[in-house]
Amino acid sequence: MLTNISGFPEFLPREQIAFNALLDKIKEQFELYGFTPLETPAVERVSTLLAKGNDHEIYGVHRLAQEQGIKEKDLALRFDLTVPLARYVAQHYSKLTFPYRRYHIAPVWRGERPQAGRYRQFYQCDIDIVGDGALPLIYDAEVLSVIYNVFISLGIKRFGIILNNRALLTGLLKSLGVSVGTLIPILRILDKAEKVSKAVFTKELEHYGMSPGNIKVLEHLMTQQLDNKDWLKYLPTLCTTREFMTGLQELEELMNRLQDFEVPDTCLRIDPMLTRGLTYYTGTVCEVKLLDYPQLGSVCGGGRYANLVESLSDRALPGVGFSIGVSRLLPKLIETGIIQAQKETPAEVMVTSQNIQHMQYYIYVAKILRTHHINTEIYLAQKPLSLQIKYASKKGISFVIIADHEELAREEIILRALTKGKQMRVSLAQALAVLKHPELFQELT
Amino acid sequence: MLTNISGFPEFLPREQIAFNALLDKIKEQFELYGFTPLETPAVERVSTLLAKGNDHEIYGVHRLAQEQGIKEKDLALRFDLTVPLARYVAQHYSKLTFPYRRYHIAPVWRGERPQAGRYRQFYQCDIDIVGDGALPLIYDAEVLSVIYNVFISLGIKRFGIILNNRALLTGLLKSLGVSVGTLIPILRILDKAEKVSKAVFTKELEHYGMSPGNIKVLEHLMTQQLDNKDWLKYLPTLCTTREFMTGLQELEELMNRLQDFEVPDTCLRIDPMLTRGLTYYTGTVCEVKLLDYPQLGSVCGGGRYANLVESLSDRALPGVGFSIGVSRLLPKLIETGIIQAQKETPAEVMVTSQNIQHMQYYIYVAKILRTHHINTEIYLAQKPLSLQIKYASKKGISFVIIADHEELAREEIILRALTKGKQMRVSLAQALAVLKHPELFQELT
Repeated sequence: MLTNISGFPEFLPREQIAFNALLDKIKEQFELYGFTPLETPAVERVSTLLAKGNDHEIYGVHRLAQEQGIKEKDLALRFDLTVPLARYVAQHYSKLTFPYRRYHIAPVWRGERPQAGRYRQFYQCDIDIVGDGALPLIYDAEVLSVIYNVFISLGIKRFGIILNNRALLTGLLKSLGVSVGTLIPILRILDKAEKVSKAVFTKELEHYGMSPGNIKVLEHLMTQQLDNKDWLKYLPTLCTTREFMTGLQELEELMNRLQDFEVPDTCLRIDPMLTRGLTYYTGTVCEVKLLDYPQLGSVCGGGRYANLVESLSDRALPGVGFSIGVSRLLPKLIETGIIQAQKETPAEVMVTSQNIQHMQYYIYVAKILRTHHINTEIYLAQKPLSLQIKYASKKGISFVIIADHEELAREEIILRALTKGKQMRVSLAQALAVLKHPELFQELT
Repeated sequence: MLTNISGFPEFLPREQIAFNALLDKIKEQFELYGFTPLETPAVERVSTLLAKGNDHEIYGVHRLAQEQGIKEKDLALRFDLTVPLARYVAQHYSKLTFPYRRYHIAPVWRGERPQAGRYRQFYQCDIDIVGDGALPLIYDAEVLSVIYNVFISLGIKRFGIILNNRALLTGLLKSLGVSVGTLIPILRILDKAEKVSKAVFTKELEHYGMSPGNIKVLEHLMTQQLDNKDWLKYLPTLCTTREFMTGLQELEELMNRLQDFEVPDTCLRIDPMLTRGLTYYTGTVCEVKLLDYPQLGSVCGGGRYANLVESLSDRALPGVGFSIGVSRLLPKLIETGIIQAQKETPAEVMVTSQNIQHMQYYIYVAKILRTHHINTEIYLAQKPLSLQIKYASKKGISFVIIADHEELAREEIILRALTKGKQMRVSLAQALAVLKHPELFQELT
């Protein structure tokens, strides 16, 4: 009995077609905004992957023949697409044009304990813009507007973009007496706050020396429901340190810029407690949630980093980028009918081969259709027509073509619409017209 | 100093765009013939990868944290796309529709010693048709016709499809006294004959007990130059064993069927000594060579296997399939100009931002263009116009759009063709028309 390797899912044909359609739509949007494709090898040096510190267990790779006392222990599978980007930009700096705008749609691998919704191999769809020395804040707004337009183009209507600025959050924490040394563990606690009880949350913060009064401040900020304008009025009353004010000003400017890019304010939600990961980000942070699936968590996240290549190069290359979690998104898009998973083939039509003598005619018909960019399968085995049609129907093909002596003599074919159970005898030209505009079928029968 | 990991190449933006264009064209053809996409995880069980025996060193994968006395030594990266197909079909048999027609375009990993033209990660583009119990020979012809049409669609004019049948070759060898036990090593010698001297070739065959007379027969067959018709007349005079005659009849039928599929005979070349790999194939074998690059070796190969799932299932699932070696093909296609590698971005036009006050107008212009499916970048940083144009030019973008007070007031823009060094002031509608049909530019200026 063969079984999936735990954590390494694979699709049946219908879902694979749906998944590819989703990736194609995202790719099309990324290119529409002038992002260039990148694909790095699946494998990176372990030293590269661990340079910035990372929370994920990674998969080492070694030649199997050398398993005894592995010598090549310096290779591993990437766990995200940001570290490979940093390495690529540092390595090929002199050959790239900056700001470098790239997208990368590819699998990543993590040694997670398998559990619902956690995969060991899954896809990420990333865009990033990397500047040489400097990158104005307007790029944060542009990248966010691309993400907004990707979700719109996918036909998703109810989603929220949650925004914060890392300087605002750390500035606030520091003003509450948090030391630089406990900043990371406290950010981690805030990041996971939604997943634990209030008692656990309080206990953990107390463990890092936070006073009950200050914990109350954080809890208040987490539960506070304000619209964006009111947040921007309220926040300056909380804290006035330079770091906090820098974060606040950036957040305000970002909100203004997003108006220029026609991202509607109703779609944006300021959340001063949003952390979004721990290491990279230094300014803008953001995540996207589907409003109808709050329990799904975020389906996209990202932000601004002051220097992408910090540990790899002595240049300063700031950037801003986002990652869409498509593996998590797909099931919901299929569920809501936004993405179809009803066909197990890209073929729009199948030519049956009722009479082996006429095989050349069947091949000729298929050739004409393909010349007109219609994906066409020919059923080649000598099986009863009913069985051939059943095969097409099972695969979700909409139309079959049937032809015998009579049709061949007149250069015609019988075009049958499988879902409608109707058919008509037509010329090849008419068949082409119908296959290009299936709504014509009803009119002609 | 960062360097590539030996054997794991990656592209700069221009080449990446060219490579993606190549994969897209191949994918489009595969779908035109009704092949459905498949993507399996990068990782398979080691037992699956080694079930059929294999010549390639494979890469084991294990969680790095468990490196001490690795417990999970049963996972490894795939070395081809055929073994994952076999495992997939055996595992999901009851949920697939047969004949199952799939394509798979993805990287594979091999622990090769790095040398020119040998990669440790490289792409394969595979199509296969797998039957349930039986699969008529006409499918061999169909798959070959798809491969023929892929090469034609790529704009490659001079290529040869070299054909043989494994039964013909093994029948002949057996009639020359080769025992079943020495068949595989002798096939391996024939497979590598082109790469060694005549003396080495002779010595190796002698090592396996082949007589000087029989070695002469093989040498004669290797150097013999006949056209296909003459081969089909000559071959029956060589041997008359049942196995040989079965192979010959299949080869003849395949040649006839290929005519039905309009694959020209001038493109086909029978070579009774073609071996093409060692384990899988049982009938038709084939490879494709570029006539202008004989030293490149084969760029595509495949054939018929009697049972894909032999060691994985007790069903009989015969198949026929091919694999295109795109990593080897790409440099030649760029060299001959068939594939372009001149742009480092998918953007066709860049909107400059000469005056930050007018940013909303620049964003509006870009939005209109994108609505009409024109890939558009906006240059957002406040840099001198000359620098912005230099940036666009360096990236290979054909057109830039320039606008200041005057253009904004009239809802116009200046459209400059960078390669031509000419520009014109036009309405947005005119700009759209030119960007959709760049040949209009000359007329309008």
